[in-house]
Amino acid sequence: MNRDAAARDLLGLTAAALASPDLAGGVTPTLEKLVNDTAAVGSAYFQTDTRALTYSVRAATGAMPQTAGMQAVAAHGLPADTPLMRALERAQAPLFFDDTRRSPETQGFPELGVASVAAAPVRSADGRLLGAFLMHTFEPHVWQTQEATLFSVVCGTVAALAGRLAAEEEARAAREAALRALGLALEARDRETQGHTDRVTELAMRFARRLGWTAAACEPLRWGAYLHDIGKIAIPDAVLLKPGRLSPEEWTVMRSHVDAGVRFAQALNFLPAGAMALIQDHHERWDGGGYPRGLAGEQISSEGRLFALCDVYDALTSDRPYRSAWTHAQTAEELRRLSGVQFDPELVETFIALTETVAD
Amino acid sequence: MNRDAAARDLLGLTAAALASPDLAGGVTPTLEKLVNDTAAVGSAYFQTDTRALTYSVRAATGAMPQTAGMQAVAAHGLPADTPLMRALERAQAPLFFDDTRRSPETQGFPELGVASVAAAPVRSADGRLLGAFLMHTFEPHVWQTQEATLFSVVCGTVAALAGRLAAEEEARAAREAALRALGLALEARDRETQGHTDRVTELAMRFARRLGWTAAACEPLRWGAYLHDIGKIAIPDAVLLKPGRLSPEEWTVMRSHVDAGVRFAQALNFLPAGAMALIQDHHERWDGGGYPRGLAGEQISSEGRLFALCDVYDALTSDRPYRSAWTHAQTAEELRRLSGVQFDPELVETFIALTETVAD
Repeated sequence: MNRDAAARDLLGLTAAALASPDLAGGVTPTLEKLVNDTAAVGSAYFQTDTRALTYSVRAATGAMPQTAGMQAVAAHGLPADTPLMRALERAQAPLFFDDTRRSPETQGFPELGVASVAAAPVRSADGRLLGAFLMHTFEPHVWQTQEATLFSVVCGTVAALAGRLAAEEEARAAREAALRALGLALEARDRETQGHTDRVTELAMRFARRLGWTAAACEPLRWGAYLHDIGKIAIPDAVLLKPGRLSPEEWTVMRSHVDAGVRFAQALNFLPAGAMALIQDHHERWDGGGYPRGLAGEQISSEGRLFALCDVYDALTSDRPYRSAWTHAQTAEELRRLSGVQFDPELVETFIALTETVAD
Repeated sequence: MNRDAAARDLLGLTAAALASPDLAGGVTPTLEKLVNDTAAVGSAYFQTDTRALTYSVRAATGAMPQTAGMQAVAAHGLPADTPLMRALERAQAPLFFDDTRRSPETQGFPELGVASVAAAPVRSADGRLLGAFLMHTFEPHVWQTQEATLFSVVCGTVAALAGRLAAEEEARAAREAALRALGLALEARDRETQGHTDRVTELAMRFARRLGWTAAACEPLRWGAYLHDIGKIAIPDAVLLKPGRLSPEEWTVMRSHVDAGVRFAQALNFLPAGAMALIQDHHERWDGGGYPRGLAGEQISSEGRLFALCDVYDALTSDRPYRSAWTHAQTAEELRRLSGVQFDPELVETFIALTETVAD
């Protein structure tokens, strides 16, 4: 391979591995590279479970020995207390065993059908052994410097990918935790709102899927639905918890929950635009008579238009202190009456068909 | 270099780079490796600012040409609209220029004093050009396959590190955003509490530093202080906002803010143990007469004991509807009276000395 091809090849490999959204997808091409460019007939990546008792196969390529022992490893993983894994716990560099019959660390490997093996530790940023990269041959083989170099590069790439995925998982968990904590805070103020939030979030997700929204478009909708009433934390008890109907002045106060919600949501700087749009727009009306901005028609975000139907449907089909819950048929009639008035006329019939399947 | 040394060398390099807490610390050893193992006399890593108009030097090693042009690059970065950076925008692989006088992409480089250069794109997981790795010579040089391979490995490592750091930054931002949103929600319920939170968080940090707490120990304290009253979101307005003194029944309700706060904080699963301990313990007393658990002495977390002084100090030195703020001298006398009763006697004098320097 010439200079430019070699460089393109390696950088392409690491770039693809590093951009992968999951471990197996990032690791598999690097395993294939090992089998193609070294004497190894097969290669596998093992990663530990949280209790670190076993290292399970996360990705494998090439030929595995057809022995009962190897089938057990494939199914159940490599126990952490094998001599090889104990050696990797201590290792600061890859280990090369040209003949597994001659090293105490590879005890058990000849019986698996593995005659030579290279093994590298993959560690987390804080130095913990996360997993192991193995490549093997069926006949004894003296591993060469060039093979050792490639093996090291590949292990570095996997460690990098594992590190990035762990950090991304941490970010995802932090975002979910923030939403959960805000949800709990709202629930502590007003239990009824919370039951409503859970139902209406699920309904909005089903509606979006029925409308053919992609998973990527559904995610902002889910977050927006979950947070749509979060501004009610700021509404005084005298209004928020009033058992009867609200006076016009009290309605003015209640309506301020949209602006308060937008303020809280803006503090969550990781919220996608669609979620913000839903929080901002969920009380707008198709005819422009809604609040807080009085937007009309397609000025209203698609998230806001979709969600308005779910929100009103859930309110009408729930008991209130001053009236019983409406039936599906009564509610459907009301939604049709308000089609093109309060609601986007293109959405109403699909929504009614969707809710018919579970109601009445 | 023999096989094991070569492997150890490369894996050690990538492992060190990947574990680095910052970009320069991770990149510098890889730059040194390039200068040691290739014909390059110098190497540098450039990364773009958010507006992508300029790529600034983030790390550099080896010899740079002593030209005015190169000094300008070191000070101000490489503009994004130079031919080389435009070529890297499109490049899927490293680019090698054996003689900068002969390639349109290296226009301007001969004047900088750079006779040959290798340049590699560093991209984010979503493919955006994040930065560029450069290595150069003062005389024309035909870059060899082995040099190209090492260069590619090094660039992959930097891309991986940059990706992990970006994901970690995202996680950090999500955690801070969650705290900010909860803080805003509390502020919306009770403005007075918020002013108290800001003052008391700052006071607790100063106190901890005075006591010689490490930065690592101060971080949980800061988060706990910021959230210590978050459970007040759950307290009804009739109690939370009552202008006069609370009745015994109302005090029982008010005290429930500790349990509510612990509940919200548990939802923030990223909160460190010290922060949880502060929220749980900040109303415990040294003599066991506090709430909610009636812990005594060193059963109370050090965060709780430290913070209790700050919390009471701020309350006494602030105006209340039913009394004026106390002076520092009056407050110090009260804290001394309660030393070993409400407060850890080992902390009281240090705290009084700390607050003397800013009060009265």
